[in-house]
Amino acid sequence: MSELRFNPISKEWVIIATDRAKRPRDFIKTKEKKILPEYKKECPFCPGNENQTPEETFRISDNTAWKVRSVFNLYGALSPQGGRVRTNDGLYRTMSGFGNHEVIIEHPKHNTTIPLMQDAEVADIIRTYKQRYSAIQQNRGIEAIIIFKNHGPNAGTSLEHPHSQLIATPIVSPQSRSRIEQAVNYFDVTGDCLFCQTLAEELKLKKRIVSESENFVSFMPYAGASPFQAWIFPRRHMASFDQINETEVIDLAKNLKCILSKLYYGLDNPDYNYTIRSIPVTEEGKEYFHWYLSIIPRISQPAGFELGSGMFINTSLPEESAEFLRQVKC
Amino acid sequence: MSELRFNPISKEWVIIATDRAKRPRDFIKTKEKKILPEYKKECPFCPGNENQTPEETFRISDNTAWKVRSVFNLYGALSPQGGRVRTNDGLYRTMSGFGNHEVIIEHPKHNTTIPLMQDAEVADIIRTYKQRYSAIQQNRGIEAIIIFKNHGPNAGTSLEHPHSQLIATPIVSPQSRSRIEQAVNYFDVTGDCLFCQTLAEELKLKKRIVSESENFVSFMPYAGASPFQAWIFPRRHMASFDQINETEVIDLAKNLKCILSKLYYGLDNPDYNYTIRSIPVTEEGKEYFHWYLSIIPRISQPAGFELGSGMFINTSLPEESAEFLRQVKC
Repeated sequence: MSELRFNPISKEWVIIATDRAKRPRDFIKTKEKKILPEYKKECPFCPGNENQTPEETFRISDNTAWKVRSVFNLYGALSPQGGRVRTNDGLYRTMSGFGNHEVIIEHPKHNTTIPLMQDAEVADIIRTYKQRYSAIQQNRGIEAIIIFKNHGPNAGTSLEHPHSQLIATPIVSPQSRSRIEQAVNYFDVTGDCLFCQTLAEELKLKKRIVSESENFVSFMPYAGASPFQAWIFPRRHMASFDQINETEVIDLAKNLKCILSKLYYGLDNPDYNYTIRSIPVTEEGKEYFHWYLSIIPRISQPAGFELGSGMFINTSLPEESAEFLRQVKC
Repeated sequence: MSELRFNPISKEWVIIATDRAKRPRDFIKTKEKKILPEYKKECPFCPGNENQTPEETFRISDNTAWKVRSVFNLYGALSPQGGRVRTNDGLYRTMSGFGNHEVIIEHPKHNTTIPLMQDAEVADIIRTYKQRYSAIQQNRGIEAIIIFKNHGPNAGTSLEHPHSQLIATPIVSPQSRSRIEQAVNYFDVTGDCLFCQTLAEELKLKKRIVSESENFVSFMPYAGASPFQAWIFPRRHMASFDQINETEVIDLAKNLKCILSKLYYGLDNPDYNYTIRSIPVTEEGKEYFHWYLSIIPRISQPAGFELGSGMFINTSLPEESAEFLRQVKC
């Protein structure tokens, strides 16, 4: 018989279909290997084509060349021009598309990806995330900053050159408010951080841990909504990604590379998204929240049931997936 | 500049990327046409293979053969055996996989789909939905019933034979509770039904209406979360799908066939999901809710931003999509 599990952080119910659970190896979808060149003349993110991207907002470079760049998105979903203008018309509410949308070009090489990079190169990506987060949150009217990565077509990208994105929104989304409400309720009742308690519980049980280091722990959530969903939690209690220090930047890079490598080698380079879940900038410093990074391999397709109910069916067991990934090198 | 729109029914913000909005024709993805046979010997849903499906729960037939059948799902996500058993272990809550999961085999022919069926055949599908909904809601411990359809691989199905599904859950999902809360708040403040008011507004504005009949109206929501998302609202105020009468069954069939035909001919048979959003069975009869059917073509891919924020980016304008579909035959 299957079981339902409740995720106290996301406030979502998941049906873990244990009866028809697939084995971890069943999720390997061997794709046709596309051999990419290290440099592609027509790629706007490749070195030499810097004038094809919109304005650069930040770069990390050594003496000779850039290592990571952030630029405005050519087709930004939101724009820093203008301000927050709201209009209400009867039932409907509209807001001007104020905000920010940047692209972080992760590496000069067209054909690399985090598992193939040096640790120090991944640290430069995280450093760029932090610099952009800290700079953009200064802007009046920005309420939340979402850093995310789309890897592969099933994860919503068609651009090959390795890149992440940052979108700053002029509102706190109802999803974010709902997660905050969960954390506040737990904090009010127990006096503890829901995330610190989750981490303590997982470290005690051990069965869903994938890897750990001095400052971070990677594990599969008890009620993972889809196969191989993984979380990286900082051990130190901090509400905002902006609070990460330089030691933690270097250590997060190692952890991120490690778990993405385990997916890369263990599941043959699956498509995935990851996102950093930080407190809204207007709530910064609150004690009840704790930022983390969530990785969602796109190896199953949410369908009508998920859309109709907001619940999920997961055909893998988080405990088995964690056991499988623990065995894979990183 | 793009704009943000708020959906008062789903409580979701959508970025309508008007700057980079695609034209309706840009969403046509011509696929390789797969010629399917009318009958496939190895298909468990084809006539003659009835003994390959689990127990039948209902059928509509004429003198010679069945027209629609419902059967238990061979790999049911939830099962009517046992009951609702909850266990709490520290932070985590689990429930036994009690519920129901049925498949509605829509037609004897392997290679048909709603746009190609007769109106009377589609009415038999809706009649089956209603019969199963009404029967299953009698079971103690069932709290919500989700009827849905997955059409095509991007919508999460690999089975070719036309079918829908029904999952009955032992809980009301937090997503459903959140929508109810929106409806209750509106009702408490205004004394009106949020859905009736939305319908009145759309009928007044006309620009997002796709088609209408005596009992139903098909339109594109003001803050549609993805391209060509469409809603079919009953004009009569009723909270539960269970309240639909025979005249409305026949008329809903026509409306569903009409809008699916417009997608089929206008966008070259896109993959899609649809789901019936009804009040939870334990809330039946409440005045503030109003059931409807939601159709979500799977022609764009939610990515890291959507996962990380719970917001959506829609690269189409609902008004333009509605205008486009109004011109397509049905």
